[in-house]
Amino acid sequence: MVYFNCDYTEGAHPRIMEKLLDTNLEQTPGYGTDIYCEQAKALILQACQCPKAQVHFLVGGTQVNFTIIRAALRPHQGVIAPETGHIHVHETGAVEATGHKILALPCGVEGKLTAAQVEKAAAEHFAGSMPPAHMVQPKMVYISQPTENGALYSLEELEALHTVCRKWGLFLFADGARMGYGLTARGADAALPDMARLCDAFTIGGTKCGALFGEAAVLVNPALQEDFLYAVKQNGGMLAKGRLLGLQFSGLFESGLYYEICQKANAFAYEIADACKEAGFPAYAPSPTNQQFFIFPDDVLEKLQQHFHFSFWEKTDEGHTAVRICTSWATTEENVQALISAIKAAGAEK
Amino acid sequence: MVYFNCDYTEGAHPRIMEKLLDTNLEQTPGYGTDIYCEQAKALILQACQCPKAQVHFLVGGTQVNFTIIRAALRPHQGVIAPETGHIHVHETGAVEATGHKILALPCGVEGKLTAAQVEKAAAEHFAGSMPPAHMVQPKMVYISQPTENGALYSLEELEALHTVCRKWGLFLFADGARMGYGLTARGADAALPDMARLCDAFTIGGTKCGALFGEAAVLVNPALQEDFLYAVKQNGGMLAKGRLLGLQFSGLFESGLYYEICQKANAFAYEIADACKEAGFPAYAPSPTNQQFFIFPDDVLEKLQQHFHFSFWEKTDEGHTAVRICTSWATTEENVQALISAIKAAGAEK
Amino acid sequence: MVYFNCDYTEGAHPRIMEKLLDTNLEQTPGYGTDIYCEQAKALILQACQCPKAQVHFLVGGTQVNFTIIRAALRPHQGVIAPETGHIHVHETGAVEATGHKILALPCGVEGKLTAAQVEKAAAEHFAGSMPPAHMVQPKMVYISQPTENGALYSLEELEALHTVCRKWGLFLFADGARMGYGLTARGADAALPDMARLCDAFTIGGTKCGALFGEAAVLVNPALQEDFLYAVKQNGGMLAKGRLLGLQFSGLFESGLYYEICQKANAFAYEIADACKEAGFPAYAPSPTNQQFFIFPDDVLEKLQQHFHFSFWEKTDEGHTAVRICTSWATTEENVQALISAIKAAGAEK
Amino acid sequence: MVYFNCDYTEGAHPRIMEKLLDTNLEQTPGYGTDIYCEQAKALILQACQCPKAQVHFLVGGTQVNFTIIRAALRPHQGVIAPETGHIHVHETGAVEATGHKILALPCGVEGKLTAAQVEKAAAEHFAGSMPPAHMVQPKMVYISQPTENGALYSLEELEALHTVCRKWGLFLFADGARMGYGLTARGADAALPDMARLCDAFTIGGTKCGALFGEAAVLVNPALQEDFLYAVKQNGGMLAKGRLLGLQFSGLFESGLYYEICQKANAFAYEIADACKEAGFPAYAPSPTNQQFFIFPDDVLEKLQQHFHFSFWEKTDEGHTAVRICTSWATTEENVQALISAIKAAGAEK
Repeated sequence: MVYFNCDYTEGAHPRIMEKLLDTNLEQTPGYGTDIYCEQAKALILQACQCPKAQVHFLVGGTQVNFTIIRAALRPHQGVIAPETGHIHVHETGAVEATGHKILALPCGVEGKLTAAQVEKAAAEHFAGSMPPAHMVQPKMVYISQPTENGALYSLEELEALHTVCRKWGLFLFADGARMGYGLTARGADAALPDMARLCDAFTIGGTKCGALFGEAAVLVNPALQEDFLYAVKQNGGMLAKGRLLGLQFSGLFESGLYYEICQKANAFAYEIADACKEAGFPAYAPSPTNQQFFIFPDDVLEKLQQHFHFSFWEKTDEGHTAVRICTSWATTEENVQALISAIKAAGAEK
Repeated sequence: MVYFNCDYTEGAHPRIMEKLLDTNLEQTPGYGTDIYCEQAKALILQACQCPKAQVHFLVGGTQVNFTIIRAALRPHQGVIAPETGHIHVHETGAVEATGHKILALPCGVEGKLTAAQVEKAAAEHFAGSMPPAHMVQPKMVYISQPTENGALYSLEELEALHTVCRKWGLFLFADGARMGYGLTARGADAALPDMARLCDAFTIGGTKCGALFGEAAVLVNPALQEDFLYAVKQNGGMLAKGRLLGLQFSGLFESGLYYEICQKANAFAYEIADACKEAGFPAYAPSPTNQQFFIFPDDVLEKLQQHFHFSFWEKTDEGHTAVRICTSWATTEENVQALISAIKAAGAEK
Repeated sequence: MVYFNCDYTEGAHPRIMEKLLDTNLEQTPGYGTDIYCEQAKALILQACQCPKAQVHFLVGGTQVNFTIIRAALRPHQGVIAPETGHIHVHETGAVEATGHKILALPCGVEGKLTAAQVEKAAAEHFAGSMPPAHMVQPKMVYISQPTENGALYSLEELEALHTVCRKWGLFLFADGARMGYGLTARGADAALPDMARLCDAFTIGGTKCGALFGEAAVLVNPALQEDFLYAVKQNGGMLAKGRLLGLQFSGLFESGLYYEICQKANAFAYEIADACKEAGFPAYAPSPTNQQFFIFPDDVLEKLQQHFHFSFWEKTDEGHTAVRICTSWATTEENVQALISAIKAAGAEK
Repeated sequence: MVYFNCDYTEGAHPRIMEKLLDTNLEQTPGYGTDIYCEQAKALILQACQCPKAQVHFLVGGTQVNFTIIRAALRPHQGVIAPETGHIHVHETGAVEATGHKILALPCGVEGKLTAAQVEKAAAEHFAGSMPPAHMVQPKMVYISQPTENGALYSLEELEALHTVCRKWGLFLFADGARMGYGLTARGADAALPDMARLCDAFTIGGTKCGALFGEAAVLVNPALQEDFLYAVKQNGGMLAKGRLLGLQFSGLFESGLYYEICQKANAFAYEIADACKEAGFPAYAPSPTNQQFFIFPDDVLEKLQQHFHFSFWEKTDEGHTAVRICTSWATTEENVQALISAIKAAGAEK
């Protein structure tokens, strides 16, 4: 069986493992106060061209999301998010468990919010006819870059979101669990310095982009920086051997490894997508990143799944199912070709 | 100016005030351990024909809702509610502030959930293809009887909700802030004993039905009863002079006052509704209770509002607005006739 | 049986009841936006000589405490309080339920914190040898004026607390559930304008000082004012018929009623205390306010309790018990004399 | 510089690193549903002789503590802990941030609670003269085995705690962040099967005992098992590449590595302690585990700290300081001898 169901089926990129091994017996101070964390932070700030931002390393994606949101909001404030946002559907209510409502807005199959939606929601709250204190005050906008459905915000879309957030005093927060795949996607025009310029905070995911685990929180807005270390500790995100995070992010950023491996995964994803299309299987959602979403007849899918694992996404109708097919730094040419052959064969049999 | 905007513009029914005055200098123990609270509890249990239920008195509606929900749920559990549910839109995220997600489901203009919707949501969680631990576990269904839009669940609808809740292990909780208007509505077929038989918990509102303030929480399911007094205290709902609540609910239930005054308010509401319809103004939502929702041309509305206060509900289109018109125990025949005349005049001028 | 166990055994002062009755059928807008709330706020601001403060009315003491604390603190911040502080021992963990640790410091029988204690705690956190992010950050100091044990902070003590709070960036918050008894106590030298000058926030209790219920939150520091109305609503403190609070506080402050009735209660308390001392029963804690704490042999107590209710406070040794004896606006001369006679008789029998 | 300040200055034991490396390119399902987690759980259940317990792997110590406590308690319940308990002093209020009060009890320098203390606290709450609903209900007892100060509960002490917890319906929870050092300490008489028999839940620490990171939660009481996976996810403890935890705990438990390396660290610790005593430096607290606490004159300490890092513990008087000296699996014979020589030399110079 070959796993294409997600991008966390293997360990870490061999160069990351090597780094951990080489330094294993070194003694360093704990809790992220070591030299490797310092190096990694400097590399990320440099990549973002944003020397005044703060970088913090946390262990996981759900954790970094609720830690940033909890630290940013006062109790009566909530976060606007698309209905398909990871915090809204797949984090077991972690944000609400910190006391904050997610103000979910409808979104299309791409999982993106528009500036117009944010404008409407904010205007209704702050300039509507109901007394606002009876409702949750919107204070943050959460987006994922790329989205849970593989789509990407363009630079123009991000600029528009930034502008509306400034207008209404909202923080713009981008969940970058798969940031690497977004930065290196076909047609991507928003680079890390753009993220740093347009967002108040965003994350750079390690777990799904070559590391064993780890998410970097980049806090650009000074209002979000104060005392953040307390939040990391209180929310369980402070690793005793913090250097493990520093070492991995140094490894990813010191010689472009982060971009290199994500770009390669995207390229594999495009090959698979092309094969699906050529074989006559329609896309569920357009995606320029390492997650591809295609719709197969159930009997075809059953056959493919004898050899390949995908993620179930949705029953699209009685006889068809949408699945997610993922590539990663660990995907091999051999497995991609095997999958493509199987898809082609399935298409021919139809 | 005459207020028809809501049902809490006056103090309490004169017989309630009299009771408070008559007992004012009596000494009683605090925190609801007095004889008047005991009397009121007995009267409510009798009205519900449910001697094993617990009755607790709290001060306000938002408070009683979040106290019951917080006490009932474990941290990973959430409450299914209609999109227009009071807890979802007009309680400043009080439920989320206690850590719980509201799983909002779409609903029509009446603001009601169906058993089929609950079945679908529960089945997707407990029997779906995603690992459930990544999502909030539905554990309670919140409905309002009558709803925020004045509608009423029929006995059949409540039976169906009860059945689906039993099937999936969900608590059924009915917010009865306006219960009195529901119990005495035209066509109402669910009485208090039905509520007690079909719900795990429900409230009986005092604030909007003749009292100065106060909500009775009726906890039918023993699983919701244990240690509830701690929850009342922790959430700020335990009044030092608890007898004020006991006295008021005794007053409402000892000689049928609760029903009498709500029925009268409903009758006034029907008169107003009839006048609107006759004058050619359409209903925004059908309502058999004391809240009526009608759509007026904006110029008509402006004129009416020179003499009468309504609650803005929604802009229905460019030139029209839906408003809420409320009656209560305190509504006078004179004011109703004045309003009806004004509506008729407005209709004639059209 | 006569109740001296607490100061909330009766309803409200007759002049308050009269006000509620006189206005009962008036129509006013809801949620505290009425004219009576405006009047009451103006009267309190005037009494505090602090026109820029905000005044909010909430229903109960536990509620106003946790609402202010929750609104003031970020998640990693806690509140320094004396071990006997009401929030620490008798509010069912309401403050922790909002997510905040109470940093309890030892205190004597008077229940007071000193500026030196606060200095030490703050210095240890902010200037100690442990990394502060591993500990809760002190951000507020909670005191009660008068304390739960009847004692009073002097102006000098409050000045010192104010100074140390300013030094370390801590909010000073005084719980004034019994403020009226403190303001009118023998030897009291801190008036409302002093409270407003020295505290960032404080409350003025109505429940125990002549009202049916109600606490006024006075928010002096602008940092605590922003969006406080959302906090009131979210925490269940916003009364639909908010005018009930405005009417009561207007009644208490418009002609000095608040001071008048509390002073009278204090005078009764002194008479009772003098009787205890003369009869040879020692004080448990010195108190210049309406709560008196005395130690009786258990057999004496048993006899007294055949006619009078006191609050159990503590077993002081095998054969003795400390009790609280409370007076209030409702205490009658007749009952005080009866109690004094009984105490004298008990002393003589010893 | 040599670090003796804590037991998390290096990476993982080489055999653990080897396991991670050997499996790095294997594909496994995510979130702890892999074969390595299954293996590790089976090994731990076997070591505990408790086949019906549940084992869950979380990332860090603060996280596993607050996740277990939050999942176990209802909102009005709190956890009894010694004043020096890690959850009370060094986890940034993480437990309170989940809404629960820590009921801290005084303890000696060893950091241990006694059954008598628990009995007293529970009896005061459940059988005292105050109405219990005004106070936090004790529902859990938290101890650390070994304690933060290196001490160990004997089997007899644990039996007594177990008995009193059963009596009052309290959960007994042992924080085993350094469990391995406790199990292999000189004189230790409580083995893992005893922990499983006497506690409702406990943890087995990986981070400080040979792993890169990771804590195993052993849930013995079925009441604590239901839906725990939701809690892991909601609180950020579910690692995408969950196998990393399974692999490490398999490595620690499959051939006795956990015991072997902790025993060796303890032996080094005893050598250092003996050297201190012989050199005339007194112990701050007696400890049979890898953490040793000794008091040095400040000038001696300054000199030692030119070559060795210790953890500051407390200023014991004007001229003396207590420090923590830690060993671990990574401590080398060479460094231990160097430290002993330095201590001896310092003793001789006195």
